[in-house]
Amino acid sequence: MQSTLLYIILGSSIGALAFAVALARWVLARGTGTPEMRKISDAIQEGAEAYLARQYKTISVLAVLVAVALAVGYGILRTSAPTDPVSERGVLAFYITLSFLLGALSSGIAGFMGMWVSIRTNIRVAAAATTSLNAALQTALRGGAVSGLFTVAMSLLGVGGLFTILSFLSPPSMVAEWPTKIPFLILGYGFGASFVALFAQLGGGIYTKAADVGADLVGKVEAGIPEDDPRNPAVIADLVGDNVGDCAGRGADLFESTAAENIGAMILGVLLYKSFGVNGILFPLVIMSLGLLASIIGVMVVKTKEDADPMDALNRGYYVTAAIVSVLIFVACKWLLNAPGAPDAWWHFFLCAMVGVATSIAFVFITQYYTEYRYRPVKAIADASKTGPATNIIMGLSVGMESTVLPVFAIAIALVASYMLGGSSGIVIDGKPGGGLYGTAVATMGMLGTAGYILAMDVFGPITDNAGGIIEMSKQPEAIREKTDRLDAVGNTTKALTKGYAIGSAALAAFLLFSAYLDEVKNYTGVEMKVELSKPQVFVAALLGGMLVFWFTSLALRAVSRAAQSVITEVRRQFKEKPGIMLGTDQPDYGRCVDIVTIGALKAMVLPGALVLFFPIVVGLAFKELGGSDAHLGAEAVAGFLMIATVVGILMAVFLNNGGGAWDNAKKYIETGVLGGKKSDPHKAAVVGDTVGDPFKDTAGPSLHVLIKLLSTITLVLAPLFI
Amino acid sequence: MQSTLLYIILGSSIGALAFAVALARWVLARGTGTPEMRKISDAIQEGAEAYLARQYKTISVLAVLVAVALAVGYGILRTSAPTDPVSERGVLAFYITLSFLLGALSSGIAGFMGMWVSIRTNIRVAAAATTSLNAALQTALRGGAVSGLFTVAMSLLGVGGLFTILSFLSPPSMVAEWPTKIPFLILGYGFGASFVALFAQLGGGIYTKAADVGADLVGKVEAGIPEDDPRNPAVIADLVGDNVGDCAGRGADLFESTAAENIGAMILGVLLYKSFGVNGILFPLVIMSLGLLASIIGVMVVKTKEDADPMDALNRGYYVTAAIVSVLIFVACKWLLNAPGAPDAWWHFFLCAMVGVATSIAFVFITQYYTEYRYRPVKAIADASKTGPATNIIMGLSVGMESTVLPVFAIAIALVASYMLGGSSGIVIDGKPGGGLYGTAVATMGMLGTAGYILAMDVFGPITDNAGGIIEMSKQPEAIREKTDRLDAVGNTTKALTKGYAIGSAALAAFLLFSAYLDEVKNYTGVEMKVELSKPQVFVAALLGGMLVFWFTSLALRAVSRAAQSVITEVRRQFKEKPGIMLGTDQPDYGRCVDIVTIGALKAMVLPGALVLFFPIVVGLAFKELGGSDAHLGAEAVAGFLMIATVVGILMAVFLNNGGGAWDNAKKYIETGVLGGKKSDPHKAAVVGDTVGDPFKDTAGPSLHVLIKLLSTITLVLAPLFI
Repeated sequence: MQSTLLYIILGSSIGALAFAVALARWVLARGTGTPEMRKISDAIQEGAEAYLARQYKTISVLAVLVAVALAVGYGILRTSAPTDPVSERGVLAFYITLSFLLGALSSGIAGFMGMWVSIRTNIRVAAAATTSLNAALQTALRGGAVSGLFTVAMSLLGVGGLFTILSFLSPPSMVAEWPTKIPFLILGYGFGASFVALFAQLGGGIYTKAADVGADLVGKVEAGIPEDDPRNPAVIADLVGDNVGDCAGRGADLFESTAAENIGAMILGVLLYKSFGVNGILFPLVIMSLGLLASIIGVMVVKTKEDADPMDALNRGYYVTAAIVSVLIFVACKWLLNAPGAPDAWWHFFLCAMVGVATSIAFVFITQYYTEYRYRPVKAIADASKTGPATNIIMGLSVGMESTVLPVFAIAIALVASYMLGGSSGIVIDGKPGGGLYGTAVATMGMLGTAGYILAMDVFGPITDNAGGIIEMSKQPEAIREKTDRLDAVGNTTKALTKGYAIGSAALAAFLLFSAYLDEVKNYTGVEMKVELSKPQVFVAALLGGMLVFWFTSLALRAVSRAAQSVITEVRRQFKEKPGIMLGTDQPDYGRCVDIVTIGALKAMVLPGALVLFFPIVVGLAFKELGGSDAHLGAEAVAGFLMIATVVGILMAVFLNNGGGAWDNAKKYIETGVLGGKKSDPHKAAVVGDTVGDPFKDTAGPSLHVLIKLLSTITLVLAPLFI
Repeated sequence: MQSTLLYIILGSSIGALAFAVALARWVLARGTGTPEMRKISDAIQEGAEAYLARQYKTISVLAVLVAVALAVGYGILRTSAPTDPVSERGVLAFYITLSFLLGALSSGIAGFMGMWVSIRTNIRVAAAATTSLNAALQTALRGGAVSGLFTVAMSLLGVGGLFTILSFLSPPSMVAEWPTKIPFLILGYGFGASFVALFAQLGGGIYTKAADVGADLVGKVEAGIPEDDPRNPAVIADLVGDNVGDCAGRGADLFESTAAENIGAMILGVLLYKSFGVNGILFPLVIMSLGLLASIIGVMVVKTKEDADPMDALNRGYYVTAAIVSVLIFVACKWLLNAPGAPDAWWHFFLCAMVGVATSIAFVFITQYYTEYRYRPVKAIADASKTGPATNIIMGLSVGMESTVLPVFAIAIALVASYMLGGSSGIVIDGKPGGGLYGTAVATMGMLGTAGYILAMDVFGPITDNAGGIIEMSKQPEAIREKTDRLDAVGNTTKALTKGYAIGSAALAAFLLFSAYLDEVKNYTGVEMKVELSKPQVFVAALLGGMLVFWFTSLALRAVSRAAQSVITEVRRQFKEKPGIMLGTDQPDYGRCVDIVTIGALKAMVLPGALVLFFPIVVGLAFKELGGSDAHLGAEAVAGFLMIATVVGILMAVFLNNGGGAWDNAKKYIETGVLGGKKSDPHKAAVVGDTVGDPFKDTAGPSLHVLIKLLSTITLVLAPLFI
């Protein structure tokens, strides 16, 4: 059975990669438009590739340092050698370090590939827009799907491949229980992935918003020229930013989501080994395989009529994906989850997976309610703009904070429901009902099943944004601009939806990874650890965890503000030294702005990144020292730290994402002509709100998704150090 | 010994009340200036008293409803009757309900008295400013001290008085352990106090900022008239707001702090009954008594020279208070905390108290660093104003979030240090070292020892603010205005300090009240309850707790925005209908604005208030139902809910308080002439930040202090319902 499942997992991930390559060839075969369009697109490509190369260089150096620290930490410093043969220092150090490097490398490749295709897709979407809306829509979505499929398939191939390789390396003394050991040996893969994701999302997020805020403030506000005007020296940096932030950044985010949550779910599957055998361990990977298939079909069925709302077409594709994955999961549950003495288990867990699918749909609706201008919240922000920027900001903050309410209820219901469904499945561990935790894991996997499609929709955003910029800068006729504008508006919505989805799955996964951590600790100590908030040290650690989120957000916001400042200074300098730029007789120096943002973003991402890496380690080691007679106080304090950082991180991220999205669309709502329309006082107030929202929704918010999971994977990997 | 201690406690609280009355008579004997000044002051008095009367009417109705619910809930609904004779339904219901009503009433009286004096002090400070700075400073501080002493002494008298009365009502069967039962019977007093405080702080906070924001936006921004200009119809409402928000609101806040934390500390003292006897239970009240004495001396030594910084004089008074209270606590520890077999206990606990005093001083410094324009954070906000309101807002939010870091470290160190000091004191409970929790309680009491002086400094703020307004509106000469301006600036600092102090003590007390809750649950069930975050239900409850803080903050911000909107509409109407107002030929209708804000604030405070009251009850009852075989799941989930709401509430309150203060002073910094000074573009940007910060620092932030403690007292009082 194990080899059948591994065939399915490896086969479908390789198949999805092959399909992604075919899609990429299809996209690259589209026309590339006029020479003017190519000139702009080339400049974007050059800037994006230059940035990514430098970013990966920085990350590589940091990753090698961490790998050395891991090898040293596991190999030498860890003093309490457990009796378990695979936990021997050398073996464990080798596997953890290797899988860390592999995870980091895979994440890098997935991010690079996704962006490579998307910066080549944008011009083809622009060219397709000169023929039909459907052609442009399909080109953009399929270009996005290359990124989406590549990311999810690489993650699956990495985890599945490592499992396969390790399954041949069983020590002779422990053949029977060997599959239950493997998940703990490949923990490093998730850590490597989230390590790269943190810096990719932070650096990309700072890059994109520093360029955006800087270009807007100095161009739109000071010089009075429109967005994407070729006279603005920062305009190329702005377009590059969409690719390195939304595209490479979000790709890395979802890569590590699927990797870390797969491994976490496998660890919980180990608990049920006596009931399900290896099926329970590999089931999460099977769901991801099925999700890849469903996503491919979902992407391919999307088409639109010339006069229809393209969002409807994308929604249809999403519902098709969700429906297919539900049917496939039903079959998989019935086939794989049969435990002796628990005839009802399979459909209990199927319902858990459906809870996950329902949660992802709920998040789509909630996010739309809080960020689209058809509904009350965005209208209230627009309305508050009548009395100036201050009331616009207060109302936007209020809407953002309110928008945490429904997502939390959705998460609460999903967690409790899947836990109770799993708990009543008839599965027994040590004489007690024990399927609850696995139920939450299956719900998480159900939610992540549609990740491939969701990510395709997400990358659709920067592609259409860039296509619009190319159309605008190459001065195409109004009718074509209208098409890319419609796609661009849809792209804004899909970007907001992905963020809702990403944080929803992070929240659901948080409990899964937390439970995996507790199980990991138990694996080392042999006793079950409780995390008691009533111990003052655990409470203090919790307080520190919550504070970390505020600190990190503060640093992320400030980084954007600083880097934007340097863009503004540079653009002002160019305008002053070359007055011909504004008259259109002189060329602005785009490259200089790209350089400045690149350096600024790379410099600014180091401090917040280092904070996230070191803080939990310091907390764990400090409380280990303070523990005295309480042997596990270090590990327990880290657990409290992790949980509260996660809770606060979820709330803060939802607040930042939705607040930022709502401000953006309040401005767009006024631009449709209400409250005086463009250039009116309410519009000016709304532009302030939109600018404040930029680093909220595209830098700090998405970076918090990664922070949450990086904390989980760090603590998972470093658990032995705290014991 | 018990009666000696009660004599001290009751004697010092009655003595302090008498001293407050004498101080009030001294203040009322000062001169009341010119007829113009009296006219303005009368209008403020009228508005403030009218508002307070209506607010108390609303609160009374709500309080009676809660009292009935308590009586019914305890008397009838509670099904599992414990065996303990005093816990019999009728007895418990009677005491809890009665102490609730008494707490609510006392809080109301203290708030009313404080405001009654302060609205009569403002004009006397204005008149004193025409003679000397020192006279004005002393009048303002002593007027504030009436409020400060009254509040703390009433709280002490209430708790001490209830203890005294109940000590005569011991059932014959349990004379020996009777003192250990009393703290649980007077829980309602703290709940009543925090119930009134929530509405007083919320209503007052919404009132003051709706009037302030509305008056500023329509006066300063639209009509271009200066602050406190008599032509602005909302100017009296603005001045009234300072009294009902800062004065009555903050008074209620610190009243319930001392009440709730006294009772919580007494409950932890019960745990040490075998070691310290009744001394341990009454020790917290003794510290408060000594603090009253120290505060009186501190207030009376304050004096300043004409050319000195008045802040130095106030700081001197604070250090005198802290030094005296430290010496007195040393004596009290040595006298009262002698346990057989623990000769070192007394100085361990003395050091715990010093940790508390040190923490309060640390909070003073940290708050100054983040909110005064001598330091980096405020300067950075001012600097970011150069590129407009958006960057000002981003930087302000960043500074506010960063400002959570040091306070959290201070709290963390204080909690762990006092826990370890207490734990190593030699006190033994059930064979294990058991003084740790009491150590954190003593640290909290040490921090609260200076509450009387701190509150005097706080009320100093609105008094000098009002005095400045009276001077401005009655068109006094520049030299006198300069004096009140200096006092007003100092008042802004002291208000910020009190908020830092209030949240610091709330944070330190959070763990104390949480432990008291666990002890209360143990008292009912007989078994020790652990709060395990690893249970999904507890995690979900924690997530809900964190979300409550975001929801509440959202509602508080929106309430201000809404009520300010109605002020703006009204002022615009008056300007339009009576053009003579702007020319100075026609009188604005101040009363109408006062009415509008009054109604708006009272309406707006009900929803967030109700949310805080009902949410924990719903969580407790829902998880009790879901608990199934886990009998205490309801109580455990409530504990998780409470803790995380507290953690997030502390972080959010610090963020809001300091962010708001920093924005305010960034504007003031620019007004000193840097970056172009008043009316420059950076100044306009800074005004936007200041306006956003208004509801942060004066509505949402301070209301969160109360929310944190109200949640603790609700759960303490309602614990039996969740079991």
